[in-house]
Amino acid sequence: MKIGTTHLFVPGPTTVPEVVRRAMNVPTEDHRAPDFPDFVLELLGDLTRVLRLREGRVLLYPGSGTGAWEAAISNCLSRGDRVLMARHGHFSTLWADMAQRLGLDVVAHDVEWGEGVPVEAFEQALRADPSIRAVFVTHNETATGVTSDVRAVRRAMDAAGSDALLFVDGVSSIASIEFRQDDWGVDVAVAGSQKGFMLPAGLAILGVSEKALAAAERTTTERCYFAFRDMIAANDVGYFPYTPPTSLLHGLRASLDRLLDEGMDEVAARHHRLGEGVRQGVKAWGLELCALSPRWYSDTVTAVRVPAGVDGAAVCRIAYHRYRTSFGGGLGKVAGKVFRIGHLGDVNEVSCLSALAAAEMALLDAGVPLEAGAGVAAAQQYYRQALVAEEESAAEPWSRARLAAVR
Amino acid sequence: MKIGTTHLFVPGPTTVPEVVRRAMNVPTEDHRAPDFPDFVLELLGDLTRVLRLREGRVLLYPGSGTGAWEAAISNCLSRGDRVLMARHGHFSTLWADMAQRLGLDVVAHDVEWGEGVPVEAFEQALRADPSIRAVFVTHNETATGVTSDVRAVRRAMDAAGSDALLFVDGVSSIASIEFRQDDWGVDVAVAGSQKGFMLPAGLAILGVSEKALAAAERTTTERCYFAFRDMIAANDVGYFPYTPPTSLLHGLRASLDRLLDEGMDEVAARHHRLGEGVRQGVKAWGLELCALSPRWYSDTVTAVRVPAGVDGAAVCRIAYHRYRTSFGGGLGKVAGKVFRIGHLGDVNEVSCLSALAAAEMALLDAGVPLEAGAGVAAAQQYYRQALVAEEESAAEPWSRARLAAVR
Amino acid sequence: MKIGTTHLFVPGPTTVPEVVRRAMNVPTEDHRAPDFPDFVLELLGDLTRVLRLREGRVLLYPGSGTGAWEAAISNCLSRGDRVLMARHGHFSTLWADMAQRLGLDVVAHDVEWGEGVPVEAFEQALRADPSIRAVFVTHNETATGVTSDVRAVRRAMDAAGSDALLFVDGVSSIASIEFRQDDWGVDVAVAGSQKGFMLPAGLAILGVSEKALAAAERTTTERCYFAFRDMIAANDVGYFPYTPPTSLLHGLRASLDRLLDEGMDEVAARHHRLGEGVRQGVKAWGLELCALSPRWYSDTVTAVRVPAGVDGAAVCRIAYHRYRTSFGGGLGKVAGKVFRIGHLGDVNEVSCLSALAAAEMALLDAGVPLEAGAGVAAAQQYYRQALVAEEESAAEPWSRARLAAVR
Amino acid sequence: MKIGTTHLFVPGPTTVPEVVRRAMNVPTEDHRAPDFPDFVLELLGDLTRVLRLREGRVLLYPGSGTGAWEAAISNCLSRGDRVLMARHGHFSTLWADMAQRLGLDVVAHDVEWGEGVPVEAFEQALRADPSIRAVFVTHNETATGVTSDVRAVRRAMDAAGSDALLFVDGVSSIASIEFRQDDWGVDVAVAGSQKGFMLPAGLAILGVSEKALAAAERTTTERCYFAFRDMIAANDVGYFPYTPPTSLLHGLRASLDRLLDEGMDEVAARHHRLGEGVRQGVKAWGLELCALSPRWYSDTVTAVRVPAGVDGAAVCRIAYHRYRTSFGGGLGKVAGKVFRIGHLGDVNEVSCLSALAAAEMALLDAGVPLEAGAGVAAAQQYYRQALVAEEESAAEPWSRARLAAVR
Repeated sequence: MKIGTTHLFVPGPTTVPEVVRRAMNVPTEDHRAPDFPDFVLELLGDLTRVLRLREGRVLLYPGSGTGAWEAAISNCLSRGDRVLMARHGHFSTLWADMAQRLGLDVVAHDVEWGEGVPVEAFEQALRADPSIRAVFVTHNETATGVTSDVRAVRRAMDAAGSDALLFVDGVSSIASIEFRQDDWGVDVAVAGSQKGFMLPAGLAILGVSEKALAAAERTTTERCYFAFRDMIAANDVGYFPYTPPTSLLHGLRASLDRLLDEGMDEVAARHHRLGEGVRQGVKAWGLELCALSPRWYSDTVTAVRVPAGVDGAAVCRIAYHRYRTSFGGGLGKVAGKVFRIGHLGDVNEVSCLSALAAAEMALLDAGVPLEAGAGVAAAQQYYRQALVAEEESAAEPWSRARLAAVR
Repeated sequence: MKIGTTHLFVPGPTTVPEVVRRAMNVPTEDHRAPDFPDFVLELLGDLTRVLRLREGRVLLYPGSGTGAWEAAISNCLSRGDRVLMARHGHFSTLWADMAQRLGLDVVAHDVEWGEGVPVEAFEQALRADPSIRAVFVTHNETATGVTSDVRAVRRAMDAAGSDALLFVDGVSSIASIEFRQDDWGVDVAVAGSQKGFMLPAGLAILGVSEKALAAAERTTTERCYFAFRDMIAANDVGYFPYTPPTSLLHGLRASLDRLLDEGMDEVAARHHRLGEGVRQGVKAWGLELCALSPRWYSDTVTAVRVPAGVDGAAVCRIAYHRYRTSFGGGLGKVAGKVFRIGHLGDVNEVSCLSALAAAEMALLDAGVPLEAGAGVAAAQQYYRQALVAEEESAAEPWSRARLAAVR
Repeated sequence: MKIGTTHLFVPGPTTVPEVVRRAMNVPTEDHRAPDFPDFVLELLGDLTRVLRLREGRVLLYPGSGTGAWEAAISNCLSRGDRVLMARHGHFSTLWADMAQRLGLDVVAHDVEWGEGVPVEAFEQALRADPSIRAVFVTHNETATGVTSDVRAVRRAMDAAGSDALLFVDGVSSIASIEFRQDDWGVDVAVAGSQKGFMLPAGLAILGVSEKALAAAERTTTERCYFAFRDMIAANDVGYFPYTPPTSLLHGLRASLDRLLDEGMDEVAARHHRLGEGVRQGVKAWGLELCALSPRWYSDTVTAVRVPAGVDGAAVCRIAYHRYRTSFGGGLGKVAGKVFRIGHLGDVNEVSCLSALAAAEMALLDAGVPLEAGAGVAAAQQYYRQALVAEEESAAEPWSRARLAAVR
Repeated sequence: MKIGTTHLFVPGPTTVPEVVRRAMNVPTEDHRAPDFPDFVLELLGDLTRVLRLREGRVLLYPGSGTGAWEAAISNCLSRGDRVLMARHGHFSTLWADMAQRLGLDVVAHDVEWGEGVPVEAFEQALRADPSIRAVFVTHNETATGVTSDVRAVRRAMDAAGSDALLFVDGVSSIASIEFRQDDWGVDVAVAGSQKGFMLPAGLAILGVSEKALAAAERTTTERCYFAFRDMIAANDVGYFPYTPPTSLLHGLRASLDRLLDEGMDEVAARHHRLGEGVRQGVKAWGLELCALSPRWYSDTVTAVRVPAGVDGAAVCRIAYHRYRTSFGGGLGKVAGKVFRIGHLGDVNEVSCLSALAAAEMALLDAGVPLEAGAGVAAAQQYYRQALVAEEESAAEPWSRARLAAVR
């Protein structure tokens, strides 16, 4: 029997906010009803604001983020096209595998897990090989807690004179940390509903630039379910080519309302604050991050290296069974060597402290020598200062009211 | 502003039963948790009982029924494979289009809309062309309200000595009307969550025979998201290769419980009773069905032909706006010529009477001369007799108790 | 096992609209939180708009309508006070019983069940006995489907020179049919959450005039839980004297939004239209109403007399078990002689037709000779004309759009 | 805007478990339906098992715990009856006030807030005054975090030869800490839905002994809404005398299932473990409890004294606004001097650690000098040992499985 909340700190799927959960609890509706397009067209319009995409389209498929990967490839590239990728974690490796299986000619750069996309190496590769048709970037490698610099990749592409398309896996970054599709020159952005959008899994989300849309008209890969053209034709009149998951669409409506109400800059600032507190806690434990340099630190997930001789999987198992707390385990090359704390979506400071408190107990039980409470204390210190500073600088009425109330 | 229930009689998505809706309202959970497989393995096992599939596998993808169509094709067939299909309605036509777009060599038999799959013509085609690798059957053509005889198609294949695979689109038949995957020799059965399973859209459901699984090992079509092999490898240990829509899985759990508790034969008998009542009502209006012969009558959807000079779309529009009732419109070739009443899923006799009552008003308002109340009266007569007969023959305690109560 | 919706046509509790049901699905909150009063004060303010009460207070107790009856008596009257009441149905009789049990000196006028409050007799009684301290009126007698004329009672009181308080049981009238607390001079109005407010049971609702509040300061009856003074003191600062049912308060918020958005006059017009259609149906069956004259016809509940020799309870039993439809049975003196159709709250035309369709089958099965479909047809005829007329006269954009769509 | 969970640590209303929340989300049903009694009678039967009441009745009223207080008094006592009570906190004081307002002759013992019921003084009072008709005990004084010894009070009554009735306010004890109505000789036990039963507020719950039921037949206080006799007559056939809050009844069904599945002894053991951890945390802060001796420590709520010069209300305000965490403030005599941490209902170890973590930050911000993380560390230490010990001693398969998993 399970007593009390299971504390969920996997790096996605994330906790669904109450307001979103309520919004999804709708009866079945007729997705061909005359007034359905009003709802759909506004929804798609607002979604572009989260991606910061003015020129292009957003597309929603019933599917997972993996489906969105496939939609990106099968629409915008043809079998045999050469693409440049980095493998620096479990998910970037999986995407490269998919690209190969779907018939692309993958030029893969293997990078140490814990580092990000090698921008300079990419620039050299692009200079050396003008036949590269697309560059793939895993914006936030969920397995290692590493965020790569998408804007720098675009600059490198420009510097190399490449006209390749830029594909970005933003599954665990979009709607959480800064993402600017237009400004960064991203041609195809891929996301899923179950991370920053704070919904259950089930929606594959894509942002597609005009350039990528044009490319999709010329490619030869067979596709049907994920075909951009069919989706766009139906979307143009506010419908879908097949039955959409309407409750997820209503959930997305509530999620977009909340994200846009908070403001995308504020969403990113909050994730930075929460993530930094967790990192302060890990530092106080005396443990290392999987991310090898602060420039790679992810604000949505922190992968913590466990000391030699300790099984990272045991930390997760103890946390789950004894303390009702779910952390992410190590995947692929770092299986058993790390455990991961997700801090994205509908989380706040006290949530993150409970993650640290549970982790401390599980680490101690698994044999890691650390001082109980030390990580919590370090994060508390950081959060107290950060929140006071935020209140003092706040222009928003609600924050000023909050300040007044606590003074 | 919408007052009162919107009465939903589209032929899918269907009304979600309260017990299923409650079951889906779960917080996010960790789909890699140690105890998640217990849930998944039992779920998959029970799903085979609905398909009546003992030899083979069931597979669940985040996606729609259209995704299940594509999964069937891309796994079990290779580009250039010759397949035999009938086009006798909107959805069978779409499936044939998909097969062509995915590179198959489609031998399509065009049949009048309102008829079913031409079994004899198929048998002749198979005898004449042993290179046919698969036969596709749309079990229930949702656009015309026509049910085809899958068992007869298998017999024709056997008679013709064909070793082709038998693919069946059961999206609007499975879990509603009789379907026996093993007994009928169906190799790939395709379904979606939003019809007989009474869930929101979002799950592509497949039943795959051992023969089809073996074929999938030999085909050359590129696939990744829908690849059987990856799904099976993960399912074997109770997991999914990517984040599954867990709330839909919990809904499926509740749906299977209800279906198996009612009994698949009883589910089919109920749909027959409900559908027959609707047909009695249509007959009393003096209108024709789209289905051209009683042998094709569908127990899940009734497509009604409107008289010449009347716009079937107007009937739906009036019903929706004035009477808060959603019917299905005519699709493709029969657009404007029919409107469709769905009677599948969580419906009962009084629901169907309200559909007929709303339809009568909309038809009258649209200019169809009929006697108000006549269709309702005919269906009432049928339902009263059928329910009394059912109660008298019932072996189940609850039905006997019901009988006692009404005597 | 129950398949499909149970069609609910009891005269309360009523179907909860989806938007209200969603609003109630909130996590527990701290009812002493600093921002809770913002929510409470606006809620109470808007509630007065439904009662059309400008001078006075509304009060909400965790309880049922019966609790609201008791709150009214125990606050505003003292033991031994003489009160004037009519007993003309089950609920008016119960209220008179309560008054006696709580120590009042009840002057009860027994009136035939099916008639309303005898205004002239009341006026005479008041003239004859100036010691009467309060007059009690059951605005809508739910057991007989009879609406009394509250405004006329107040005029009679004025004509008789009485300064008695006017108590009105509006449980099955308020928020459904016309009710004007100030204009009609109602001192204490009593309601519950589960009828016109379309919520689950659990909130006792009172509207109290300044005169009644002043009276409550002088009475001597012991009370504590239902004491106005404690509730008012807490409400004044936005709180409650004990833990309130916060999810019902959130539901009430959504209910008020919907009622005020529709408009109280429009709400009453809709209930009249729906009720009149049901009455047309009953007339077509050749059956009599319990209400003896059109002046008493209730727009929220229709009590139908069954012919001699037929058991009204059997009609309900058959409807429930065989047709999954709940009607109200006869209560008290009319037990077995009537069955009742509720048509209040979140209902529309097609809902009411399904009630008539189910009733026709149950009546026929119970041995009442009537023509199947006749009641449905009569109501269809009425609803078609009424809705077209409403659309043509509508000033509201949504209705005009609806009109455009159906033309 | 509120981001993330509001962490709720008031001492009731408590967090509603997901399984209970789901169970409450039911459509309106007919509470006079023929099969409703099956549900009600089983529910009432199982409720007696939580109270450990074999001889007597349980009664459920739409109302709050305060309503249950009033029901107890108005049914079992007559105006002028002498009763013995202690005032040792806000809620025991309120109950004494109610008793006086309802006309009882209250003999009140004022005890320092932080102590429990003075058993010896009670025994003396009972010996000295045989006219005392009832003894009232607040089992768990929610304002001070003090649990009194009900069994000892009954022994004292017996020793004094008193035949008075024993009334117990178990609002914040029943279903959380040990309570044995029969064994302890409790005549009227009073509870509410929103604490140990983990439901929203809205149900007044009473357990009444045969002796108290007999007394209720002889008392003269007027009552109607809360009358035992009406409720019992309706309950005897499985119904209620007025519309019950059916969704709360379904929630209670799920709550009872969970409580009885865990086992009442195990529920009490869990609350002890959780409460003890919190107390270890408070001790590590160097702060005092409001409860003046370990014999009074409550396992459902801990009231913490703030140092002189610090405003306890400010601690709550900061926690709420800055850290999204709700604690209970000081009430009555201890307003501003304490803040309260609730740890009852659907809570577990990590929940309690988050309460301590949030409290530490709020205390520091309010100017209390303590070491950040110290309270968390002390509780972690306790919980780790306690959970390991529990696993090792566990006979239950699920706990042994858990043990296996973490080893």
